[in-house]
Amino acid sequence: MSQELRAVDWTGSGIALIDQTLLPQRTDTLDVQDVDTLVDAIQRLVVRGAPAIGAAGAYGVALALLQGEREGWTDGDVRAAVARIRAARPTAVNLMVCVDRVMTRFDEGLDAVLEEAVAVQREDVAANRAMGVHGADWLLQRVGAGRPLRLLTHCNTGALATAGWGTALGVVRELHTRGLVETVYADETRPLLQGARLTAWELVQEGIPHLVQADAAAAGTILRGEVDAAIVGADRIAANGDTANKVGTVGIALACAYAGIPFLVAAPTTTVDLATATGDDIHIELRAGDEVLEWSGVRTAPAASRGHNPAFDVTPGRLVTGLVTERGVLEVSAGELPGERLK
Amino acid sequence: MSQELRAVDWTGSGIALIDQTLLPQRTDTLDVQDVDTLVDAIQRLVVRGAPAIGAAGAYGVALALLQGEREGWTDGDVRAAVARIRAARPTAVNLMVCVDRVMTRFDEGLDAVLEEAVAVQREDVAANRAMGVHGADWLLQRVGAGRPLRLLTHCNTGALATAGWGTALGVVRELHTRGLVETVYADETRPLLQGARLTAWELVQEGIPHLVQADAAAAGTILRGEVDAAIVGADRIAANGDTANKVGTVGIALACAYAGIPFLVAAPTTTVDLATATGDDIHIELRAGDEVLEWSGVRTAPAASRGHNPAFDVTPGRLVTGLVTERGVLEVSAGELPGERLK
Repeated sequence: MSQELRAVDWTGSGIALIDQTLLPQRTDTLDVQDVDTLVDAIQRLVVRGAPAIGAAGAYGVALALLQGEREGWTDGDVRAAVARIRAARPTAVNLMVCVDRVMTRFDEGLDAVLEEAVAVQREDVAANRAMGVHGADWLLQRVGAGRPLRLLTHCNTGALATAGWGTALGVVRELHTRGLVETVYADETRPLLQGARLTAWELVQEGIPHLVQADAAAAGTILRGEVDAAIVGADRIAANGDTANKVGTVGIALACAYAGIPFLVAAPTTTVDLATATGDDIHIELRAGDEVLEWSGVRTAPAASRGHNPAFDVTPGRLVTGLVTERGVLEVSAGELPGERLK
Repeated sequence: MSQELRAVDWTGSGIALIDQTLLPQRTDTLDVQDVDTLVDAIQRLVVRGAPAIGAAGAYGVALALLQGEREGWTDGDVRAAVARIRAARPTAVNLMVCVDRVMTRFDEGLDAVLEEAVAVQREDVAANRAMGVHGADWLLQRVGAGRPLRLLTHCNTGALATAGWGTALGVVRELHTRGLVETVYADETRPLLQGARLTAWELVQEGIPHLVQADAAAAGTILRGEVDAAIVGADRIAANGDTANKVGTVGIALACAYAGIPFLVAAPTTTVDLATATGDDIHIELRAGDEVLEWSGVRTAPAASRGHNPAFDVTPGRLVTGLVTERGVLEVSAGELPGERLK
């Protein structure tokens, strides 16, 4: 993939989003000109991945200002629109953090807001690059240097999920740059298949060897000794290291613990919410049950069945071998708690 | 569901199989008149579930005899055809056991072979009924009697998967008969969705409250305390209790162990292979990667991606709280090993 790929970008008058619901069949860009479209795009997962949503939210403040100017909104109207963007996905703490950061310059006007949003995006890419180096170094030291690694990942945490480069997939890209990736097991990540559609697409672009597998295959693949380490992203991390991430993550962590291999979470420090003491305090978004009952609009389950569709799960911090941030790796399960180390 | 539902039945001149690849949209019966069609039906999962495959294999011996008569096969030809049926799915020990049992009467001719095959089917239903009672009694004693239970299951282990009634789902049906099922979490079971399509269909027929969820949701649902016990079937059980079952099973077992709730395997004693010492000796069928790369013939992953598609995984016996057989419940993780108790 070209390093210029941007899942989220400012066009001068609005936000350009690569429509991730259409990949890998089509690479279309959605030109977002109003707040309703942005909120809908975030909720429909046109843009997804906590850091990418954060960048979209940051530019969203500028979008709300422009729309307000165009449509004669009051200051209160603009703030209410920003609040709707901020709340579009309740589990994604980055969205709230990024919106709040840009809002500190709200009173300075559009140029200042845009400057801050651009900084959010630029800093996210820099953080991802740093995470990639820290994570790769740690893995090579821990798992054994010199030999290409067999890695497992879940959902999509690459350039599409971030402002660029990637978090967990950024570590994979860094290892690949060093010639040290043997293969990547990419969980397909039901119900929306971000792994099969997006991670596989990024890995193809990069020429990184990979195998797509059903999510249910992950634990067995790990227990059979076919994986050296698993690495995933995060949507929110509590002070004690409990990590909310795409549903299916905790099952991978349990398998890694049983098999005695590292389970890594790669996320910028903005994903750590020091105000959240433990995973019990993290609200888990329940999405529409239909997502697991149908496929591209075709019903697969009986008409009378209902679905249960939690979008995330919480991995206990004691199962997180390493939390890879832009500042370095915290060995959470060994007692390096984010709440103590990232104050 | 009517208790007369038969996934596998002898028609007088061939084998009637409910085509499980078409459920729940269509309930069609495939009339199998030759060995090639039977082997293909077993491999394409027209008929699936270890005990149902076993019954199909048992009748398959009669089918081979009839086809041999019709087409002038030698005795060796018929035996070779039976060997092909016997090997159609390598992980399913029931298939081999049932074929071998019927073959003991091969020299007595068609009537004796058919008599034995009918006995295989009749005894499987009786075993399932007994398993249902043993499993329900054990669960009520262990989890707490009097309160309807919240159960989690994987794949399909009901009347469709067996000669009738069901193994793990037979326990659920028995509990429902007693008014003691609050809800069943049915994992959709990728890649072929036996949970969303078949288990949900059976639960609808029975009027049992249920929720279909992505396989990746199982561990989180268990860790959040929403499940009282998980119960699954088995394709092969080693002497030490290691259990090969549909891919995804071991992840459920790990989550149950972490959450401290029972993980039950329900399977007839014919599923226990005393000649297999441990799970390391169980061959895991790798199915075509395309099953995880496409959906109803539509490619979801990039064209350049390959799939990794193990059909089964192995759950260590130490994670199996109870093995429910027609003879009672073995508490495997507490040291009641099948190899010692079922000799």
